[in-house]
Amino acid sequence: MKKVVIIGGGTGTYVVLSGLKKYDLKLSAIVTMMDSGGSTGRLRDQLGVLPPGDIRQCLVALSEAPDLWRKLFLYRFESGDLKGHNFGNIFLSALEMSTNAYQDVIDTASYILKTKGDVIPVTFEKVTLCAKYLDGETICGEKFIDTAFHKTSPIESLFVKPTANANQMATTAISQADFIIIGPGDLYTSLIPNLVIEGIASAIKQSKAIIIVPINLMTKQGQTTNYSVKNHVADIEKYIGKKVDVILINNGKIDQSIIDYYASHQEKPVQDDLTTDKRVIVDDIIMRTVYTKFKSDVVDRSMLRHDTDKLGAALFKILNK
Amino acid sequence: MKKVVIIGGGTGTYVVLSGLKKYDLKLSAIVTMMDSGGSTGRLRDQLGVLPPGDIRQCLVALSEAPDLWRKLFLYRFESGDLKGHNFGNIFLSALEMSTNAYQDVIDTASYILKTKGDVIPVTFEKVTLCAKYLDGETICGEKFIDTAFHKTSPIESLFVKPTANANQMATTAISQADFIIIGPGDLYTSLIPNLVIEGIASAIKQSKAIIIVPINLMTKQGQTTNYSVKNHVADIEKYIGKKVDVILINNGKIDQSIIDYYASHQEKPVQDDLTTDKRVIVDDIIMRTVYTKFKSDVVDRSMLRHDTDKLGAALFKILNK
Repeated sequence: MKKVVIIGGGTGTYVVLSGLKKYDLKLSAIVTMMDSGGSTGRLRDQLGVLPPGDIRQCLVALSEAPDLWRKLFLYRFESGDLKGHNFGNIFLSALEMSTNAYQDVIDTASYILKTKGDVIPVTFEKVTLCAKYLDGETICGEKFIDTAFHKTSPIESLFVKPTANANQMATTAISQADFIIIGPGDLYTSLIPNLVIEGIASAIKQSKAIIIVPINLMTKQGQTTNYSVKNHVADIEKYIGKKVDVILINNGKIDQSIIDYYASHQEKPVQDDLTTDKRVIVDDIIMRTVYTKFKSDVVDRSMLRHDTDKLGAALFKILNK
Repeated sequence: MKKVVIIGGGTGTYVVLSGLKKYDLKLSAIVTMMDSGGSTGRLRDQLGVLPPGDIRQCLVALSEAPDLWRKLFLYRFESGDLKGHNFGNIFLSALEMSTNAYQDVIDTASYILKTKGDVIPVTFEKVTLCAKYLDGETICGEKFIDTAFHKTSPIESLFVKPTANANQMATTAISQADFIIIGPGDLYTSLIPNLVIEGIASAIKQSKAIIIVPINLMTKQGQTTNYSVKNHVADIEKYIGKKVDVILINNGKIDQSIIDYYASHQEKPVQDDLTTDKRVIVDDIIMRTVYTKFKSDVVDRSMLRHDTDKLGAALFKILNK
């Protein structure tokens, strides 16, 4: 069975995992542990737990448990003391407080959710994500980088404080992988945060796996403002220290109303300036329905998403080339 | 296998269920759904859920799941937004919000916790507990009755608003029972609340089961001030409409330091004024270690408890007479 490692942690990773779950593949998700916003950030600050949000999303994406379990894990309280907290986050936090080994948390949650494949925290160490911008400013804290919409200068380098070692299960999965998928997802708050953990980039560099990068649909203001496909690829290659093998780009038409909405937030479709590159594959992989916000969402979530089934099928085609 | 129904909901019921779990018995716990204090009360008020606290305690008492699960369900957050909330309560609330049928909540939690026996909410209806005192005052809300320490007048009648019908599983369990255990537990906030639900008392009256009443160790200020054994039995008999069959009374010596502590709260050992009654069985059934308070407990919990193993053994002896 083909071994596929997916690196990320946010909604993009959720979509890739959900899309690939139905195929006969050995899936491993390597997940960023730097989230500091929302429910996750509050639990992290108030209880001292590792950030549960991205782990939860990946567990649910890979879950083959009855619907009720998946619904429960994604359930978000909309009022009272628990307002804005997601049940899955509370579950992982309470488990972490009740056990000494974080792997027990993953194992117990995987058991309940009957996850197909492994969800692997990139590190078990508690770290803060920092971004140094080309203008010399450094911003620390994932949630602050995520919402640094005012920044016009690109990020020169991403790092964590203190430096942290990779979870050995993550480097092992990478070294055994046939394919490594990096993306889609916020470049500096979902994808590259994994690559700056000690041991990850070198494992990827040494790996013989084919590296696939599904490119984001839209730029992100303050983080990848004006980024083209080439910029996305270049930044990933800089952190892994080698060329990626396949670049998957959407060519499905995006509704003008969605483009207008993003334009009002100074964001736009990622421009494809790599069309002649032999590594590029184009496909219609976007979702046609519009995503609805949770009432308690503080931050706007992306309106436009990759389509689970289309992205899954496009990736599966690449895995079988 | 002998069918044993335990009626209650509070800590006393937890001890009985834990004590009887190891024996080869068919156990059913019928649980009050009127709790309105603490974490339970807040979840009930803020989310509109049925009160989870007593259900959770009974599920854990009957659990044969690995320790981690039981630990998790009893885990109480000590800081942040979730402070004072118990994970099990949050779990049951999120489940209730994610499903349409409360029985699904019980079934799902029972499945995870591998409960030996059935935990049966006395009613699925949302009700408020009210106590009418002999002095004419009526207090509504379980938490207010529970903390009405100032009351010197006894409770004349207990009722719920609006009137509520029993869960059919409760009346079925009662009608099929060989034994019904009522107590120990707070008379007017744990035990009798079950008996005032439409259908429960009449099912007990019609039942051929042997009715066992383990008597509380201490009086409760404002609720059973100065109550003797006879008073406890009389009040239960008034609500079930017939005589109880066995009265189990502790004769283990209570430490003077504990008696002094209770005396400072105007509470004292329940006086045994029924020694000549043929229905009485005495046994040493108290716990010798002192219970520790949770940091986030608002209300004092009882320092003195029945001992799980001793009470279990004493009851099992009665079941096999």
